Amino acid sequence: MITLSSDFGSPYPAAMKGVVLQRTDARLVDVSHAFPRQDVRAAAFWLREILPYFPPAAHLVVVDPGVGTDRAAIAVEAGEHVLVGPDNGVLLPAAKELATGATNDAIRVHEIGYENAESSTFHGRDVFAPAAAAVHESWDADRTVPEAVDGLGDVTPTGEFVDFELPEPTIEDDAVRGEVLVVDDFGNAITNVPGYVLEGLDEVRVDGRTVPAVETFAEVPEGQWLATVGSHGNVELDVNRGRGDEAFGVEPGDSVRLEL
Amino acid sequence: MITLSSDFGSPYPAAMKGVVLQRTDARLVDVSHAFPRQDVRAAAFWLREILPYFPPAAHLVVVDPGVGTDRAAIAVEAGEHVLVGPDNGVLLPAAKELATGATNDAIRVHEIGYENAESSTFHGRDVFAPAAAAVHESWDADRTVPEAVDGLGDVTPTGEFVDFELPEPTIEDDAVRGEVLVVDDFGNAITNVPGYVLEGLDEVRVDGRTVPAVETFAEVPEGQWLATVGSHGNVELDVNRGRGDEAFGVEPGDSVRLEL
Amino acid sequence: MITLSSDFGSPYPAAMKGVVLQRTDARLVDVSHAFPRQDVRAAAFWLREILPYFPPAAHLVVVDPGVGTDRAAIAVEAGEHVLVGPDNGVLLPAAKELATGATNDAIRVHEIGYENAESSTFHGRDVFAPAAAAVHESWDADRTVPEAVDGLGDVTPTGEFVDFELPEPTIEDDAVRGEVLVVDDFGNAITNVPGYVLEGLDEVRVDGRTVPAVETFAEVPEGQWLATVGSHGNVELDVNRGRGDEAFGVEPGDSVRLEL
Repeated sequence: MITLSSDFGSPYPAAMKGVVLQRTDARLVDVSHAFPRQDVRAAAFWLREILPYFPPAAHLVVVDPGVGTDRAAIAVEAGEHVLVGPDNGVLLPAAKELATGATNDAIRVHEIGYENAESSTFHGRDVFAPAAAAVHESWDADRTVPEAVDGLGDVTPTGEFVDFELPEPTIEDDAVRGEVLVVDDFGNAITNVPGYVLEGLDEVRVDGRTVPAVETFAEVPEGQWLATVGSHGNVELDVNRGRGDEAFGVEPGDSVRLEL
Repeated sequence: MITLSSDFGSPYPAAMKGVVLQRTDARLVDVSHAFPRQDVRAAAFWLREILPYFPPAAHLVVVDPGVGTDRAAIAVEAGEHVLVGPDNGVLLPAAKELATGATNDAIRVHEIGYENAESSTFHGRDVFAPAAAAVHESWDADRTVPEAVDGLGDVTPTGEFVDFELPEPTIEDDAVRGEVLVVDDFGNAITNVPGYVLEGLDEVRVDGRTVPAVETFAEVPEGQWLATVGSHGNVELDVNRGRGDEAFGVEPGDSVRLEL
Repeated sequence: MITLSSDFGSPYPAAMKGVVLQRTDARLVDVSHAFPRQDVRAAAFWLREILPYFPPAAHLVVVDPGVGTDRAAIAVEAGEHVLVGPDNGVLLPAAKELATGATNDAIRVHEIGYENAESSTFHGRDVFAPAAAAVHESWDADRTVPEAVDGLGDVTPTGEFVDFELPEPTIEDDAVRGEVLVVDDFGNAITNVPGYVLEGLDEVRVDGRTVPAVETFAEVPEGQWLATVGSHGNVELDVNRGRGDEAFGVEPGDSVRLEL
C-alpha cells in the first residue's frame, strides 16, 4: 500500500499516480492533496495525526517549498512504515510517531540520489513518485529500502537530515501559551495545547475572552464560541456550526493564551 | 467493496480509510466527502440517487450533526447492500431505494453498540470506520451483519430508529408546490418535483417567471434560464452555462411553485 | 486499469464509478474531476500532459459541452491505450501523444452507438461509463475494441470525427506570440510557447514587462514575477509563492507576446 499526500490540488497528483503505477500494482490511497500550499508545518501535523491509523505502508509526501533547489530526497524507516519525500522535515513528526512503540523504535533516514533523473522539473512526478514505487516494492518484500532507485541514483543511509519538531506550548501554573497549528476545513482552529489542560474546567479564557470548555459541540447553542479537545487530542477553538478561525480571529502560526 | 461518504472535506476521510484498511482489504470507493456540512437531507438525497448504481457493497456514511450526543450507530440491510452510519435518518431513503425490487425488499435495522470504543472523539474514525469494516466482512461472506464489532460492542436488531423521508411536493391541477432539495456543483437547483409534470410543456411559470421547459441545455442560448428534468428524474432550475441557484434566487429548503 | 476524467466536481463521478464497477473489477484511478467546466481545450491539454505517464489503460473522459445534442460517443485506439468519450476533440491531443512512438502509431477512431441506452439524461453515467467498462474489458483482453456495447449499440470504425489541435504559437525572430492554455491550481499561467525559447535567456519581455527567465521559483524572491519552463515543457508565467494569472492579468485564451 502506498499513501499519497501533497499540496498539489488537481490534476498534478494524477501524473504521480501514473508514474507509480508504471512500477508497482500496489494499492494507492490518497491522504490529501489539499494540504496548505508549501506549508511544511501543517502537513507535518496532519501526517503525524493520520498516518498512524494506516496499516504498514509506504507514504509518499510532497510538500516541498524547496523544489528546484538541491535539497535531498529521503526515505525514512519508521516501525512498520516507510516514508518518502523531500528533506525539509515534513516527514519527521509522523516518522517519530510511527516508530513509537515499534520493536525497532529508532527512525532511520536514507538519502535517495536523483542525479540520473531524466527530468526534474516536477520532482513529485520525476523523483518522488518513482522513488516511492521502488521503496514500496522493497519495503513490502522484506522491510528494507532498496540500494538504488532505477533511473534516479543510489540510496544511502545518512545521519544528516532536516529534523523538525512541531512547536510546543509553554505551560504555566494557571495559563498556557500555545499557537494555532492548522485550521481544518470546518474552520476549527487546532492549537498545539494538549487537551488535558481543559480537564475539569467549565470555561477557559482565550486571549481575554471567556468561552465554555465542552466535550462536544452539541453542548452549546448554534453559533456559540467554545474550546474543546479535538480528535487529535489538542485544544481546538471552534464555533458550533460556524468557523472558529473567523470568530477568534486566528490563523495558523498565531499565538493563543489560555487562562485556566 | 466499501463506499465512503461524508461531509468531512480533507484530510479527515483518510483517517477513516486507514482504520478500515487495518481491518479489511476491500476495495474502497469514495462517493463524496464534499456533502453540504451537517445537511442530513442533502446527503440522503444524493445517496438515494447514487448508491443504486453500485454493485452489492457496504456503504459507510458519516453526515452527523449529532456527533457527541448519544445517538445510535446503525447498520441497515437493504437488498444486496448494507449501510453503516449514524441513526439520524441519512441512510433511510437510500436503503429503501436499494431494497426496492430485491427478493427481500424489507430493510432491517441493527444498532451497533460502541460503549467499548477506546476513543470516541471522532466517530467517523473511531466508531463508524471499524463498524463498516466489520459489517463489510460479514456481509461480503454471507449477507449477514456481525453479532458484534470487535472493540465497539454488540450488534442487535432494532425496530427503533430515526426514519426519514425526503419532502414530497404538493401536486394540484395546474400547479405544483415543491422545494429545492440540493444545489449541485454546477449551480443547478434540484427540486423534489417529479420530472413528468413537465411532459408536453414548452414553458413553465416558476415563482411567477416564465421559463422554457427543455430536454437539454443545448436547446437554449447561453445564459438562458430554463427548467429541465435532471439525471435524477426531478425538475431542475438551471441556466445554460450559468448558475440556476443564483438566477432563480433559491437555495436548499426554499419552496418553489411551478404553474404548468 | 481505467482512468476517469471529468468536469463534474462532486458527487456525480461516483455514479459513473458505480456503473463501471457493475461491469468490471478493473482498478479505477481518478485523473481529475475538477477540469474547468465544459472547457474542451483545457481538458485536452491536461490529458495530453498526464495520460502518457500511465501504464496501458482505458481512459474515460467526460468534458462535454454538447451533452444532450446528438454528438457521437467514440473510442480511440492509441498505442497501448484506448480512450472513451464524446466526439468533440477532447480525446485527440492525448490520443496522438499516446500513439507517438508506439509500434502502431496511427490512432483509430470508433463510433459507439447508444441508441439502445435506457436513459441518456446523464451521458457520463448512462453512456460513457458502460462504454468505458466494455471497452476496457476488450482492450485488456486482447487490445481490441468490442463490436458492440451491451445495452448501448454497435461499435463501428469511423473516419469522421471531430479533430482538435491545441493552438500553436507564432514564432518570429525575436518574439513569440502565443496564448495562455490553462491556469493551474497554483495560479501558474501555462502558455503554448515551447520552453526552448527561454534557453540561454536571463530575462524576457512579456506583454511589455521585463521579468526574469529562471529555471526554478527558488531563484527569485517571494512575490517576484517570473517566466519559467513548467513540467509540461511550456513557458509559464508565475509569481514565486503568488498567482501568476492575477499578476500578469491573464486568463485561458488570452494571447501573450514574448520578446526574447
